Order: sequence, then C-alpha cells, then structure tokens
Amino acid sequence: MSGYGYNPEAPLIEAPMGELPDKRTAFIEWYLEVIEAAQLTDKRYPVKGMNVWTPYGFRARRCLDAVLIREIEATGSEAVEFPALIPSTEFAKEAEHIQGFNAQVYWVTKGGLAELDVPLVLRPTSETAMYPIFSLWVRSHRDLPLNVYQIVNTFRYETKTTRPFLRVREIHFFEEHTCQVNEDAATARVASNLDAFAKMAAALDLPYLPVRRPEWDKFAGAFYSIALDIPVGEGRTLQIGSIHHYRENFSRPYGIQYEASDGSTHFAHQTTFGLSERLLGAVVAVHGDAKGVVFPSAIAPHQIVIVPIPAAAGTADPGAMAEGIASRLRQGGRRVHVDATDARPGAKYYFWELRGAPLRLEIGRREAEQGTVSATDRLGRKSTFPLEHVEVEVDRRLADFDRALMEQATERFRASFAYADSLAELAGSTQIRVVRWCGGEPCGRKIEEAIDGSVLGIPEGPLPLEPRAPGPCIACASIEGGAWALASRPL
Amino acid sequence: MSGYGYNPEAPLIEAPMGELPDKRTAFIEWYLEVIEAAQLTDKRYPVKGMNVWTPYGFRARRCLDAVLIREIEATGSEAVEFPALIPSTEFAKEAEHIQGFNAQVYWVTKGGLAELDVPLVLRPTSETAMYPIFSLWVRSHRDLPLNVYQIVNTFRYETKTTRPFLRVREIHFFEEHTCQVNEDAATARVASNLDAFAKMAAALDLPYLPVRRPEWDKFAGAFYSIALDIPVGEGRTLQIGSIHHYRENFSRPYGIQYEASDGSTHFAHQTTFGLSERLLGAVVAVHGDAKGVVFPSAIAPHQIVIVPIPAAAGTADPGAMAEGIASRLRQGGRRVHVDATDARPGAKYYFWELRGAPLRLEIGRREAEQGTVSATDRLGRKSTFPLEHVEVEVDRRLADFDRALMEQATERFRASFAYADSLAELAGSTQIRVVRWCGGEPCGRKIEEAIDGSVLGIPEGPLPLEPRAPGPCIACASIEGGAWALASRPL
Repeated sequence: MSGYGYNPEAPLIEAPMGELPDKRTAFIEWYLEVIEAAQLTDKRYPVKGMNVWTPYGFRARRCLDAVLIREIEATGSEAVEFPALIPSTEFAKEAEHIQGFNAQVYWVTKGGLAELDVPLVLRPTSETAMYPIFSLWVRSHRDLPLNVYQIVNTFRYETKTTRPFLRVREIHFFEEHTCQVNEDAATARVASNLDAFAKMAAALDLPYLPVRRPEWDKFAGAFYSIALDIPVGEGRTLQIGSIHHYRENFSRPYGIQYEASDGSTHFAHQTTFGLSERLLGAVVAVHGDAKGVVFPSAIAPHQIVIVPIPAAAGTADPGAMAEGIASRLRQGGRRVHVDATDARPGAKYYFWELRGAPLRLEIGRREAEQGTVSATDRLGRKSTFPLEHVEVEVDRRLADFDRALMEQATERFRASFAYADSLAELAGSTQIRVVRWCGGEPCGRKIEEAIDGSVLGIPEGPLPLEPRAPGPCIACASIEGGAWALASRPL
Repeated sequence: MSGYGYNPEAPLIEAPMGELPDKRTAFIEWYLEVIEAAQLTDKRYPVKGMNVWTPYGFRARRCLDAVLIREIEATGSEAVEFPALIPSTEFAKEAEHIQGFNAQVYWVTKGGLAELDVPLVLRPTSETAMYPIFSLWVRSHRDLPLNVYQIVNTFRYETKTTRPFLRVREIHFFEEHTCQVNEDAATARVASNLDAFAKMAAALDLPYLPVRRPEWDKFAGAFYSIALDIPVGEGRTLQIGSIHHYRENFSRPYGIQYEASDGSTHFAHQTTFGLSERLLGAVVAVHGDAKGVVFPSAIAPHQIVIVPIPAAAGTADPGAMAEGIASRLRQGGRRVHVDATDARPGAKYYFWELRGAPLRLEIGRREAEQGTVSATDRLGRKSTFPLEHVEVEVDRRLADFDRALMEQATERFRASFAYADSLAELAGSTQIRVVRWCGGEPCGRKIEEAIDGSVLGIPEGPLPLEPRAPGPCIACASIEGGAWALASRPL
C-alpha cells in the first residue's frame, strides 16, 4: 500500500498521506489536493489543461450525466450528436460569436500529410456545427419546437490557469440547442431550462442563484444570458452553467426559417442551455471538508461502501454477510461497493471518507452474530439497525444524509451574501455583495473596479437576504431604474 | 407530412418515398438509402465523412453502447476517458504504429492565434494517449491486471470513399486497453475478450467469425491481430471489430513496467479490443430487408411501437388503451413508443417497418372492446392475445423474434462460405472462399490477386462448413504446415 492507492479497483496515483490543506484559508490548494487524493482525476497528462478521467472520476461523471439526461429528457429534449470539427467557413457566419471565440479555438490545419483546403475548428461550443443542419431540419411550423441536446467534449485554448473540472481545455460539455416559433416561446424555453436546472441542482444538493449577466458579459452572440452561480467562499463565485436567449441572432445568418400555417415565413427564435464537468468541481468545492470529498447520493460512484471486519475463524463470517447485504441492496439499483481488501478497517474508513462515499456499513463479528448493521454516514452520524430491514434503513439514511447536506450547504450559501451601500465597502470583501445599481455600464465598471471582480448581474428570483427598500445606485447615486445586482470575485 | 418525416419525434429529413433499391443486387445503394430513410443519420454535414447522429440514430447507438458496457464490465474492465489530443512527441514513440497512422491523422497546429510549439494529433486510437499514463499507474504486480476501456470518438483522415457507420472520419469508438503480467495472461485476456464479444454479438443476433489476420494485415504495432468478420453478401466481408495482442511492443517504448513480488522488474504484456459504430452498420446490413431496417430488440430505439387506430366517438377509446399498455410495459424497462400522430394507420405501419421496430401492437375498436391486443413482429408474424397478460406475451414475442432473426442470419451466414480448390475458382467469387494456404506471404498475395480481395487469415475456431481433409496450398501446392484460410473481398 502506497499513497491512497491501495484499492485495486482504481489505478495507483501517488498522493501525499496526511492532512489536507485548510479549505477555508487555502481553498485552491485544498481543492487540488483533494481531487487528486480521492483519485477523481489524473492531471499528469502531457498537455496542459487536459486531464485523465480515472475509473473513480469517470463513475462520478457517468452518474452526473445520468441526472442531466433524466431531467432534460423529462422536458422533451432528444439526444443527438454533431461532429467535433467545424469548417472555418461555417464557424465565421455570426460576427459576434466568431469574435468571442476566435482567440480560444484549436485549429486543425492538416489531414495526413496534406494541408486542408478549409481549416477546421475543434468545436468550442456547437452553434456553428448544428445550425447549418437545423436550417435543413426546420422548414414548417410543424417541425417546431426543435429541442435537442448533446453531451460531448468541447475544446478551448484556455490561456488562464487551468484547474481540473473548473477550467480545462477539453471540457465535458452538456449543451441543449432549441428552435422556437417566436420570442415568447423562446422565453418559455428559458424558463423550462431554469426549472430543469432546479431539479438537477436539487439532486446535487447545490444551492445556486440564476443571474442575468450584464450586456458586456453575455455569451458571444446572445440576446441575453442567465448564468447559474454558486458561492465558493471568501466572496468568490463560480459559474456552473448558463442559459441563453438568442432571439434571431443565429437563425438569420444560418437561415433557420419556417413556414407558418398561413404561408408566411419567419426566422426561428433560439435558446441554449450549457453545463459542464464544472458541476463535479462544484460538488467537491461546496460539500468537501477536511476529510475529503463528500458526494451527494445521486452522483456518488458508490452510494454505500460495506466494510467487513475480519473475525476469528469458526465464528460468524462478516465477509459473507457483507456480500449478502450488497447483493440485496444492488437489486434496488443502489450502487454498492464491498471493500474486501486486506487493509486495516481504519485505513478503509479513512479512504472512503476521502473519496466521499455517503454511507458506510460496518459488519464485524458482533453484527454478524446479532444480525445487525452499523452505519456511519459521511457527515459522521452513526447508527445501528437490524439486518432484516436493510433496504429501508439504508434508503432512509441516504435521504437523511442528502437533506442534511443540503441544509448545511444552504446555511453556508445564505451566509455568503451581504448588502453593500457604498463602493468603499466592496474592497477586500469576503462575501458576495448585493448592491443597488442603475444598470449603466460605466457604473458597472466602477463597481467591478471597487470589488476587484465582476458585476455578476441581476438575480432572476429572490435574493437569499432579508428584503430591503431600494436605494440609489452606489456608483452614481441615481435613483432611476435601479435594481439589486450581485458583485463578486469569480473564481 | 413530407418524405418519411411526419413523426415530430425526429427532425425532418427528406427522403424519397417508394421502393428501396434491391438489397441483393445493389447492396450499397440499398444501404445508403435505408439508413437515411429510417433517419438513422444525416449525412449533409459540410465535412466529408462526418455525419450527424439524429435523435433516432443516437437512441440506437445508446442502446448499442449499453450492450458493450454491460458485457465488458462483466469482465472487470473499468471505464476511463483520456484526452482527444496527443502530443506529436508521444505519438511518435512506437515506430510501426506511427508509420501505420501517420498518413491518416488530423493535426492540430494552432491554438487561438498562435502556432503550437508541439503539434497535437487528434487521436486515431488511444495507445499513445494512454500508455504514458499507464507507465505511472503500473508499478507493482499488485497493479495488474489493469483492464480499462473508453467509448470516445476517434478521428481518421480517411481517403477511401466514406459511408455512414461503415467508414467515417469521426468514429464512435470502443477501445479496451489492458496490461498483464506476462504473455500467457495477455493471451488469456484475448480469450476473455472473444467471450465478451460472443455475448455482444448474440445480443445483436449477429453470426461472425474471429479470424487471425496475416502478418501483413495486422494492427500497426501488434504481435498479432484477431479480427471479427461478417459476410455481407456477394462474397464480401466487413470487419466489425478486432482484438490485438501487443506483447511488449508498446510497453517497452512507453516504459510500462512493474516490480514482481521477488523484486525483479518486467515489462507488462498488453492487449486491446476495438469496436465501433460499424456494429450499427452491420446490424442494418445483415438484418435489413426490402421494407427497411430490422433492429434486434437489444438495440431497437423502440422495442414496441403501439398504434392506436381511431374509433368513432362514444365507443371504447383505443388511444387511452394504448397509453395504458405503454405505461405497463415501460415499468419493466421496455422501450415503448405510442404513435399517436394523425397519420393513417397504414402509413404508420410502413414508417415503423422502415425504422425497424421489432414489435408493433395495434389497438382498434375491436381490441378496445374485447380487451385484446393485435401484434405484428418485424418479420411479419401476426397474432392476437388478451390484454391481461401483455407483459408476458410481449416478452415472449420479442424473444421469438430475436430467435427467428438469429436463425435467418445464421442460415445466410452459412451459405456465404464455400471451399475453393484452385486459384482459378476464386475469380469473381460471390462467396467467401475457404482455401488451403501454406501461410507464406507470396502465396497469400497470389490468393489476394486471384480473388481481387484479401486473405482474411486463419479462423480461430470452427468453420461454418462440413469438415474436409487438408490438401496442398492452392498457390504453391506445398503440403507442409498449411491451414484453412479465408479469402474475400472486404467491403
């Protein structure tokens, strides 16, 4: 046994034994060490910002994808897959979009030994791959709405510091693209996406806030962008997804038009909804603690880890009992792992806490003889129950665990926000600041300078704070047309 | 309704109405038309050989992937994912491998606006992406075996004519890579892969033959290659997968070595197992008929399509009954589609036959009043049964259907092979020829010239023909060390 890697289930990654850095005072150091120690990723791949999905990390990703697929398909969206390579000619059709992405795409210029006549872009996002085909698929109002999504990898030549899951150059990406009959229908699709995301976030026990980004920070080519933001401590935020209304901004250059029932022709109004592996980073960032990762049960690679504690020969057999329990639990579709390696029980507890398993069952001689099970959840809560009702007892504990995880996260979420009444208050803030803002870009820029960060924009929906009477813009003191806006230092 | 596209579930693709080309005399024309008419792919994407996975095609692919995942994970293999981009320096480490792939890779030479210092290859296969990391994962004999697989897209700058699913430039690819303690263990892994493939092929109702490729046709860098071949009519064959033994050919240049329990150091022996979307093309090619695609139930996007036939108002409601049946059947995990569009029943039958649904249930006024269900399977077999036992009756019919599909495919499979006793007999052959071959390359080349095709190699396992006494090599008449070999024209 070396490092954390004794478990033959996962290939060996060297990681230092011992204490993790302090999450509150050294968040990034803690984050980088915990994801590696838990073997969620291997970042030794010889291209910067491109990491290896290890067996354990891949399992978590697969569970995460299943949550996204379930919720988006419940809204009638269908899975598709478009090619990864986009001809430069198609890529260039929407002016703002190409300007936004030009500096961060990978170019394929050679096929075999020859230069390509038309260089190809490795998709950074798939508008320009999909929309030429949408213009063929959409002809009549009967073809609408067109709601399709894909889960693929996208590529961005990221020049900022890369961090596994949070900012990478090959991104595991969920993208829904839709075509609607008109602006109202597209606005309704945005609302439907917000509902779907609420269910996804609930499965991950993640409190978040949808925020309408200011004009200067919207997606390249969008009419407006709603970002999904979470606090990650010290006044910093992380964007974990976004939903965009495109109006006709893309359907015009790509010619996505349809014939209405009265024979008139119209451009479709479009929306998109994007999520990524950053959600996995967010789960680690929000729920993780001094012992390691904490997975909500919806995406835990193993929801239940059973540790049989070797007993003297001739007595009841904890190993056999563990296997029996595992096979009973698996029948209900639960993800169960029996750790039957020859490591000491204490080392196993430590290892599975580090890796974030929601519930651990311990089966020793006493349990085997008495027909009981000892359970410890990842929040450290212990209990014992009769083997007879193991399915019900386990399900109840997992539900309790998720509830407690959500409560803990919500409490921290609430404490992350605070009002600020002046620009001076913004400097060095360790909270997300809620400020009155007139909506003008010059004032927005002053707020950004004062907080040394960003105006996230205007929340869609209620703030996690006691309501207050509106005041003047903190930058220009105007009292006209203002709104509560969020300012923070994005991670 | 225009073309075949009346169903709002799938975006509209124009396809000619009417008869499909004759599969026996115009196979490729039939194939190309049937996959487009059934809306399995859209090949209008503006890069040659890169096609769009439509909603219906994607569903089939997802079901296919589920079969591969189930069978490979049953052998203890774990899913991983490695980056799509490989530094040219890593790509070049194994001499034969780079020579084999150099002329058919896509090169990424620019990131954003700058030339990359080290050009990147878009993976054509992942040996050179994985093995630098395997050299870090494998250190001790306790880390072995390392059995991992990934399902990703790979890229080849194909210069031959491209065909959806059969030969494309962006390939949906399954690749297992393993490290074993020694040559025997690697040989055992090859055998385990052959067993796993037997189960996958059984789920697809596909008869096939594993064939050890001649030296000059093995995978670039392999010790030996076993291909999985199927006949596709007129003496042509299609390789639908391959399993390779690498010995130490890659572990040496990539430094994948381990310490044995006695402290000595050894290079791992490696194997790989590759499959692709070509399996979906094979399913269409083998089972399809004059009416369209025929899906085995394991990968049918909809295993059961229910067609309610509108009845006069005031009578029993076939639509409600159809929905009731669908929700009962879905509870068992069956994939069910209710076609409640307002097309005529005859058009619906035609459409779902074209798209290959294994079982169609028709619910009209008579069925609704009598509590019965009328069923027609994709081989045209009709029956009626009481609604009461719909789950059991449907399952029995699906099992019967798969059995009949396998029998029909096996009969054609057997009829595709014939012995040949002389080179002269090979010319213009419309069967796969089984010939006595000394094993030498010069004779192999003569056989290839005579059949205007390839020596597939020597079958692993029994031939689908009556055994015969060995004779001399048909090229050189030598009677030494010969074996039965297969010669055909690969598609």
